[in-house]
Amino acid sequence: MPKLMEDEVFMAFATYATIVLLKMLLMAPMTAYCRFTRGAFANEEDVALKPAEERKKLLRIHPDVERVRRCHLNDLENVVPFVLVGLLYALSGPELSSALLHFRVFAGCRFFHSVSYVCALPQPSRALAWALGLLVTLSMAYSVLSQVLVL
Amino acid sequence: MPKLMEDEVFMAFATYATIVLLKMLLMAPMTAYCRFTRGAFANEEDVALKPAEERKKLLRIHPDVERVRRCHLNDLENVVPFVLVGLLYALSGPELSSALLHFRVFAGCRFFHSVSYVCALPQPSRALAWALGLLVTLSMAYSVLSQVLVL
Amino acid sequence: MPKLMEDEVFMAFATYATIVLLKMLLMAPMTAYCRFTRGAFANEEDVALKPAEERKKLLRIHPDVERVRRCHLNDLENVVPFVLVGLLYALSGPELSSALLHFRVFAGCRFFHSVSYVCALPQPSRALAWALGLLVTLSMAYSVLSQVLVL
Repeated sequence: MPKLMEDEVFMAFATYATIVLLKMLLMAPMTAYCRFTRGAFANEEDVALKPAEERKKLLRIHPDVERVRRCHLNDLENVVPFVLVGLLYALSGPELSSALLHFRVFAGCRFFHSVSYVCALPQPSRALAWALGLLVTLSMAYSVLSQVLVL
Repeated sequence: MPKLMEDEVFMAFATYATIVLLKMLLMAPMTAYCRFTRGAFANEEDVALKPAEERKKLLRIHPDVERVRRCHLNDLENVVPFVLVGLLYALSGPELSSALLHFRVFAGCRFFHSVSYVCALPQPSRALAWALGLLVTLSMAYSVLSQVLVL
Repeated sequence: MPKLMEDEVFMAFATYATIVLLKMLLMAPMTAYCRFTRGAFANEEDVALKPAEERKKLLRIHPDVERVRRCHLNDLENVVPFVLVGLLYALSGPELSSALLHFRVFAGCRFFHSVSYVCALPQPSRALAWALGLLVTLSMAYSVLSQVLVL
């Protein structure tokens, strides 16, 4: 077995990567919850048990559901690259303090981003959370490329 | 070269991760197939060779195409976190039998999920396949966090 | 610290994975740019500073924005599996020349795919770029499965 999991930077990466992935995974149950409470479904088989006259009405698009779905998609677009770039970054041997700073800022940003998206907080709260998270990933990508560059 | 690929747990992870990623990748050709057979395209350049009067009609949304696309998006939302959390889980040194159980259940769930989504099987078949797959990922995430927690 | 980053194949993987992930990440600012220049927003809080009578008009769907978003989603569907399968492929000990060929072709395909999508180049330019990129990932997946197969 490799000794990756005895390296402190890699352990920190594993911790924060798992946490932000868990946060992302929780958007799916939240979408399901919104679909049920708002009565807005996407598939005919999802409303098959309802009375026939209600079914058509339930196959609709609801703004609250779409909002949670956009938040979920934004997570996919940002959390997955963070974890992938972060994996390479953790393997490239950074300082623990520097790595922790990157991971903590990103995790904080994404939690705040989800809250500000789902609760529709006034802008630019969501934009700033998104941009700062992106900067963290770009900083790690720069660090990786400046150490390993085999083209 | 590292000896990761001589570790049985990691080899099992590599096998199942590749299989579920292949399954996810196959949703794209299936979407393309649906777009052609249903005549429902998203881009003007995709219908440029058709007669001018037909083009407008072909730039439309078809329920079958949307169904396959939702299935694809659901794969992205679930398969990618499984592979990422599974990678950390495989590196954290679990028992081979326990790891195989996680990987096999997840792969089975996702294949069944796709079939039940694309064929519109009666609920709760799709919901159960999705929920069981999510539980597998959550179980691996719990296992990772309980072993490495550097905050 | 593991010696992964001293392996040439892994360094090449890290380089190209970071590059294609960066390309994918840049689709988000491009979407934001399109939203502002076209005046097409998705959330009410994004247009809160505009005069009340303009707000409704700005909450709309614009074809240029949707085009960039489809391009971004296509990246998610293809770049993320490439990086994940590529990671396993790089760990399975391929020849450096063979690995570089895979990585370079894929990166080229995805850059050309984005250009042909955003600029709406005549088909089949986009379709070919997508298909060739998919073939690279399938070839790496085949290589992984032919070396490690623990079911």
